[in-house]
Amino acid sequence: MAILGELGTEILIPVCGVVGIVFAVAQWFIVSKVKVTPGAASAAAGSKNGYGDYLIEEEEGLNDHNVVVKCAEIQTAISEGATSFLFTMYQYVGMFMVVFAAIIFLFLGSIEGFSTKGQPCTYSTGTCKPALYTALFSTASFLLGAITSLVSGFLGMKIATYANARTTLEARKGVGKAFITAFRSGAVMGFLLSSSGLVVLYITINVFKMYYGDDWEGLFESITGYGLGGSSMALFGRVGGGIYTKAADVGADLVGKVERNIPEDDPRNPAVIADNVGDNVGDIAGMGSDLFGSYAESSCAALVVASISSFGINHDFTAMCYPLLVSSVGIIVCLLTTLFATDFFEIKAASEIEPALKKQLIISTALMTIGVAVISWLALPAKFTIFNFGAQKDVSNWGLFFCVAVGLWAGLIIGFVTEYYTSNAYSPVQDVADSCRTGAATNVIFGLALGYKSVIIPIFAIAVSIYVSFSIAAMYGIAMAALGMLSTMATGLAIDAYGPISDNAGGIAEMAGMSHRIRERTDALDAAGNTTAAIGKGFAIGSAALVSLALFGAFVSRAGVKVVDVLSPKVFIGLIVGAMLPYWFSAMTMKSVGSAALKMVEEVRRQFNTIPGLMEGTAKPDYATCVKISTDASIKEMIPPGALVMLTPLIVGTLFGVETLSGVLAGALVSGVQIAISASNTGGAWDNAKKYIEAGNSEHARSLGPKGSDCHKAAVIGDTIGDPLKDTSGPSLNILIKLMAVESLVFAPFFATYGGVLFKYI
Amino acid sequence: MAILGELGTEILIPVCGVVGIVFAVAQWFIVSKVKVTPGAASAAAGSKNGYGDYLIEEEEGLNDHNVVVKCAEIQTAISEGATSFLFTMYQYVGMFMVVFAAIIFLFLGSIEGFSTKGQPCTYSTGTCKPALYTALFSTASFLLGAITSLVSGFLGMKIATYANARTTLEARKGVGKAFITAFRSGAVMGFLLSSSGLVVLYITINVFKMYYGDDWEGLFESITGYGLGGSSMALFGRVGGGIYTKAADVGADLVGKVERNIPEDDPRNPAVIADNVGDNVGDIAGMGSDLFGSYAESSCAALVVASISSFGINHDFTAMCYPLLVSSVGIIVCLLTTLFATDFFEIKAASEIEPALKKQLIISTALMTIGVAVISWLALPAKFTIFNFGAQKDVSNWGLFFCVAVGLWAGLIIGFVTEYYTSNAYSPVQDVADSCRTGAATNVIFGLALGYKSVIIPIFAIAVSIYVSFSIAAMYGIAMAALGMLSTMATGLAIDAYGPISDNAGGIAEMAGMSHRIRERTDALDAAGNTTAAIGKGFAIGSAALVSLALFGAFVSRAGVKVVDVLSPKVFIGLIVGAMLPYWFSAMTMKSVGSAALKMVEEVRRQFNTIPGLMEGTAKPDYATCVKISTDASIKEMIPPGALVMLTPLIVGTLFGVETLSGVLAGALVSGVQIAISASNTGGAWDNAKKYIEAGNSEHARSLGPKGSDCHKAAVIGDTIGDPLKDTSGPSLNILIKLMAVESLVFAPFFATYGGVLFKYI
Repeated sequence: MAILGELGTEILIPVCGVVGIVFAVAQWFIVSKVKVTPGAASAAAGSKNGYGDYLIEEEEGLNDHNVVVKCAEIQTAISEGATSFLFTMYQYVGMFMVVFAAIIFLFLGSIEGFSTKGQPCTYSTGTCKPALYTALFSTASFLLGAITSLVSGFLGMKIATYANARTTLEARKGVGKAFITAFRSGAVMGFLLSSSGLVVLYITINVFKMYYGDDWEGLFESITGYGLGGSSMALFGRVGGGIYTKAADVGADLVGKVERNIPEDDPRNPAVIADNVGDNVGDIAGMGSDLFGSYAESSCAALVVASISSFGINHDFTAMCYPLLVSSVGIIVCLLTTLFATDFFEIKAASEIEPALKKQLIISTALMTIGVAVISWLALPAKFTIFNFGAQKDVSNWGLFFCVAVGLWAGLIIGFVTEYYTSNAYSPVQDVADSCRTGAATNVIFGLALGYKSVIIPIFAIAVSIYVSFSIAAMYGIAMAALGMLSTMATGLAIDAYGPISDNAGGIAEMAGMSHRIRERTDALDAAGNTTAAIGKGFAIGSAALVSLALFGAFVSRAGVKVVDVLSPKVFIGLIVGAMLPYWFSAMTMKSVGSAALKMVEEVRRQFNTIPGLMEGTAKPDYATCVKISTDASIKEMIPPGALVMLTPLIVGTLFGVETLSGVLAGALVSGVQIAISASNTGGAWDNAKKYIEAGNSEHARSLGPKGSDCHKAAVIGDTIGDPLKDTSGPSLNILIKLMAVESLVFAPFFATYGGVLFKYI
Repeated sequence: MAILGELGTEILIPVCGVVGIVFAVAQWFIVSKVKVTPGAASAAAGSKNGYGDYLIEEEEGLNDHNVVVKCAEIQTAISEGATSFLFTMYQYVGMFMVVFAAIIFLFLGSIEGFSTKGQPCTYSTGTCKPALYTALFSTASFLLGAITSLVSGFLGMKIATYANARTTLEARKGVGKAFITAFRSGAVMGFLLSSSGLVVLYITINVFKMYYGDDWEGLFESITGYGLGGSSMALFGRVGGGIYTKAADVGADLVGKVERNIPEDDPRNPAVIADNVGDNVGDIAGMGSDLFGSYAESSCAALVVASISSFGINHDFTAMCYPLLVSSVGIIVCLLTTLFATDFFEIKAASEIEPALKKQLIISTALMTIGVAVISWLALPAKFTIFNFGAQKDVSNWGLFFCVAVGLWAGLIIGFVTEYYTSNAYSPVQDVADSCRTGAATNVIFGLALGYKSVIIPIFAIAVSIYVSFSIAAMYGIAMAALGMLSTMATGLAIDAYGPISDNAGGIAEMAGMSHRIRERTDALDAAGNTTAAIGKGFAIGSAALVSLALFGAFVSRAGVKVVDVLSPKVFIGLIVGAMLPYWFSAMTMKSVGSAALKMVEEVRRQFNTIPGLMEGTAKPDYATCVKISTDASIKEMIPPGALVMLTPLIVGTLFGVETLSGVLAGALVSGVQIAISASNTGGAWDNAKKYIEAGNSEHARSLGPKGSDCHKAAVIGDTIGDPLKDTSGPSLNILIKLMAVESLVFAPFFATYGGVLFKYI
C-alpha cells in the first residue's frame, strides 16, 4: 500500500483546493484596492498599494478625475455588454442542458430497459448498481460539470472586466504596476477555476460514493458525466465567444482602420465596445471553459480506467485519487510560481515582461516535476496493474511519474515552439513581415506556410508523450500525461488571461483619451500578451489531443472494443470522415465570423453615415446596437457547428456502431490537432508581424513601416484573416475533438448495446 | 472459367492500346494541318480543315502574315523554355533514378542475403524465384515506369506547346474552331498517355513472365516497381513543375498587374514567357505524370493482390488481366466519347463550351458503366476468391462490376461537386466575389471557408466507394474502384489539358498583339478551362485517395501485417505523425513558391527599372533570364519536399517497423486528401471569383467591377494566394500520399525482414 493513507488523501485534496480558492480571493482583494471611483484613486495610488511603490516610473494624470470617471464608464459598458451576452447565451445553454440531460438519462437508462435491479459487474465479480441509477447519476454529474464550468467562466469574465480599467489606471504609475494588476487578475481566474474544478469533482465523488459504496465501476462511470458537462459548456463558450469577439473585431477594423483611417479602439468607432466585450467573452470565458473541460475530462478518463485497474479492484482510495492529488499539488506549485511574478521579482521595464511570463512557465514546470515525483512516491503503491483493453498491465509508481512528467514537459516544449513561431523576436514572424513588401498575397502565403510548419515539433512532442505514456501505462498513462500538461493550468490561465485584460486596458486608455505614454505602456503589455495567448492556445491544443486520446481509450474500453483495425472498412470510413469533420466545422465557424462581421460592417458604416458629428467626435456612437449584433449573430451562428459536434457521435454510434465511431474519433483527433495548431499559429504570427511593423524597433522593421505604409496595409490584411483562424475556428477545434470523445465515452454502454443499426439491417 | 479465353485477352489488350495510340496520332495529324508558317495559313484555313467550315463565325486577320510570324516566334520561345526546363530536370531526375534503382536493388536483394537459390513461396505451395532476381526485376520495372512517365509527360508538353499557337490562329476563325483544336490536342495527350501506360505494362508483364513462368507471386511483386517508377517521376513533375509555374505566375502578376498596372500576358512583362512555359510544365506534364502514376499504381496494386487470390493461384490469365482489360475498354469508350465533342456535335458559341466538356464526363461515365459490365461478364469467372489479409473472401463477377462502377461514379460526383464550388455560375464563388466588397481579408476568409466546405461531399463519396468496394472484394475492390475512376482517364486528361492550352493561346494572342475579339474568344475557352482544371484536380485527388488505400492494403498484405490497431501506441504515433506530413510538405512547397516568386519579382522589377523603353514597348524584355530563374528555383526547391516524401517510408520502415509505417500511411492519406481538395478548390474559387468580376456578365458582377476597382483588387489578392494552393501544394499532396504508399509496398519485404530497428533495441 501507499505511504499516504486514505485519511491523508481525504485531507490533502480539499485543503489544496481551498488554499487555491483563498489565494484567488486574496489576489482579487489586492486588485480591488485600485479604485475606479474618483477621489479615492489619488489617495490609493500613493499609499495603499504600498509594497509596489518602487515600481513607479513616472506618475501622470493621477489627479485627473475626469479620466477616472471615463474609465469607470467604459468599464461599466464593457462589463454590462459581457454580462448581457453571457446571460443571453445561458438561456440557450440552459435549454440545451435540459434537453441533453434528458437524452443522457433516456439513452443510458434504456440499456437494461429502465430496470431497477442490480446487474453483474462487467470487469469485477459481484453485483453492480442498476444502469438506471447510473444514468441518473451521470445526468447529475453532467449538470454539475456544466454548472461549474459556467460559474467559473462567468467569474473569470467578471474579474477580467473588473481588472481592465484598474490596469489602465495603474498604467499611469508605470508599466510594472500595470503588469502586476493584470497578472494578479489573471491569477484570480486561474486559481478559481482549477481549485473549484478540483473541489467540486472531489465532493461529487464523495457524495456519489455514499450511494455506490463498493461499486467503483459504476461510481466512476457516472462521474464521466462531469467531463461531458464541462466540455459541452466549453463548446458554447469557445464557439459562441469566438464568433462574438471576431465578428466585432473584424467588423470594427474593416470600417475603422481600413475605410475611415481611425486608430484601433478609437471611441468614435461604434463597434469598439463590442470588440472589448469580445475579448472578455471569447478569450477569457471561452479559454477558461476550454481548459476546465480538458481538466475535467482527463480526470474522468483517468478515474474510469483506474476503476477497472488494480486501484479500483483493490479499493485503494489514495491511489484511485492519484489524478486529483496531482492536480492538488499543481495548485500549490502554481501558487509558489505566482509569487515569483508578483512578489519575489519586480518588473521595471517593458522588455522584462515577456521573460517574466516565460519564467513562470519554466518555474512551474520545474517545481511541478519535483511535486509529481513526491506525490507519486507517497500516493502510489510500488507495483500495481492498469487495465489495457482486456488485459491488465504491470506498472510501477515511477512509471506513472514518467507519464505525468512527459506530459508536463511536452507542454513546455509546445509552449516554446509556439513562442518561436509567433513572437516577433524571432525570424519566422520577421520573414512574414518582410514578405509584406510584395503585398498582402505573399504575406498570406508565407503566413500559411509558417502555420503549417509550426505543426511539426508539437506533433513530435505529442507523439513522444503518447508513445512513452502509452507504453508505460496504456490509456491511463495518456490520461495522466494530459493531467501532467494541465497540472500547471492555474499558471497557464493566469498568463493567458493577462493578455485580454491588457488588451482591454489599452482599449480603455484610448477611449478615455489618456496620453500616448499610457497607451504605449499597455501596448507593451499587450504585445507580450499576444505571444502568451498563442502559448496558451498551444497548451490547450496539446492537452486536448492527449485528453481526447485518453477519452478515446476509455470509450473503447467501456464499449468493449478490443481492436480498432484500420484495415476494416467500417473503421477506415470512420477515419476518413472523422478527418474531414474539422474542415466542415472550420468552414462553418469561419463563414459565421465572416457573415457576422459583414453585418457589423454595415451597422458601423450606417452609423458613420447617419450620425452627424460622429467622425468629428462631437456625437457619441450607438455602442449598444453593435453589442446586440454581435450577441445575436454569435448565438445564432453557434448552433450549426454545435449541432455538428453534439450529433455526430450520437448518429454515428447509433447508426454505424462503435467501430466506425472509433474511426471517426481517431480521424478527427489526428486531423483536428494539426489544423488547430496551424490556424492558431498562423493567426498569431500575422498579428505580431503587424505589431512588428508598427513598433519599428529595428532597422528592418522601420524599413517596412511606418503605420499606414503599403507594407503595413498588407500586414493588416493578414492580421484580419488571422483573427477568425486564431480565435474562433482554431481553438474551437479543441472542443470538437474532446467533446466528441467524451460524449462517446458517456454513451458507450448505449452504443455497445444498441449501436450499429444500419449495418445490422443491411 | 471466363468466357473470354487467354488468347482473346492476349489480343484485346494490345489492340485497344494500339488503337488508342493510332487515334492520338490521328488527332495530332489533324491539329498539324493548322500551319504556323505564313502563306500556307490562309490557304489551310479555308479548305483543308474542311469539315469544320460551318463553325466559322467570323474570320479576321487571316491574311495578316505578321501575326502568324509573331505567333510562331512566341510558340518557339515557349516550347524552348519548356524543353530546356524539362531537360534540366531530367538531368537531376536521371541521377535520382540511378541512385534509387541501386537502393531498390540493394534493399530488396539483401532480403535473402543476395542468395540465388529459390525460396518456398509465401502464399502458395512450391518454390518461388529467389529474392535477388525479384530485386533485379523490380529495379527494371521501376526504370520502365519512370521512363514511360517521363516520355508521356514530355510528349504531352510537346503537343501542348505545338497546339497553343495553332489554337490562337484558329480563334481568328471563331470560338468553335479554336475549341476543337485545343480539345484535339488535349486528346492526343490523354490517349497517348493512357495507351502507352497500358501497352508498356502489358509488354513488361509478358516479358517478365518468360523468366517467372508459373511463379506469379514473384512476377507481380516485381511489377509493382512500375508503379513506383511512374509515381516518383510524378513527384518531380508535380512539385518541380508546380513551383515553376507559380513562381513565374505570381512573380509576373505581382509586378505586372499590381505595380505596373499592365494586363496579364502583356509582352512587356519579362516573366510572361516563363509564365506560359509554366502552364505547360506544371499543368500538362505534371498532371499527366500524376494521373499516369495513379494508373500504374492502381493496376499494380490490383495485380499484386490478384496474384495471391484465386486468379493467381489457379493461373487464370484472363481474370488476372481484368485490371488491364478494364483500362482497355476505357480507351475505346473514351475514343467514342471524344467523337461527341469533335465530330458529332458542334460548338457555335462560347456558352456551349462548358456544357460540352461536362457532357464528355457524363457520356464517358455512362458508356464506361456498360463497358465494365460487359468486360466483367466476359473476363471473370462467376465465382472466385480474393485475398483478404490472411483469409480468402468469396466474390462474384457482378460484385467486381460494382466495385469498378462505384469508383467510376464517385469520380463523376467529385467532378460535379468540384464544379459547383469552383465555377462562377453558382452561388459559392459568387459569395466569395461578393465578400470582396469589404476587402481582401473577407475574400480570403470566405475562400478558405469555401475550400473547407467543399471537402464534405467528395469525402462522403470516397467513403462510400471504399465501404462498398472493400466490403465486396477487400483491397482488390479498392484497387478496382480506383481503376474505375481512372478508366475514363483519356477523356479526363483531354478535358484537363485543354485548359492550359487555351490559357497559352490567350497569352499568345495578347503577346502577338491580336485584336481584342480574339482575346475574348480565348478567354472564353480559358474560363471553361479553369473549371475543368479544378474538376481534373478533384478527379486526381479522389483517385489518389483510392489508389493509396489500395497500395496501403497491398503493402499490409505483403508485409504480413494482419491488423493495424489504432489502440497500439506504435500505430497511433504513426497515425498522428502521418497526418502531420501533408502540413510539413505544404509548408515547404508554399514557402518555395513564395521565395521563388520573390526572386522573380526582383528580376522583373530590375528589368523594368534598367531597360529603357520597356514600359513604352519600344524595347524587348529579357525573357530568358526569367525562364532561368524559374528553372533554377524549381529544381533547387523541389529537393527538400522530394526528400521528405522519398525518405519518410524508408526511415520509418527501417527504424520503427511496418506497424508504425502503416499508421503513417493511413494518417497521411486521411489528412492529405482533405488539404488537397480544400487547397485546390479554394484556389479555383478565388481564380473564378476574379474572373466573375472581370467578365461582368450579371448585374451583381457589374456592381463589383470593373477591372481595377477596389473589389477587383481584393479579388486579385485572393487569386494570387490561391495560385500556390491550387497548382503547387494541393496537387502535390496526391503524390505524397500515393508515393509513400507505393514505396512502402515495394520495400515491404525488406521492412518485414529487417524493419523496426529502434523498437527492437529499446
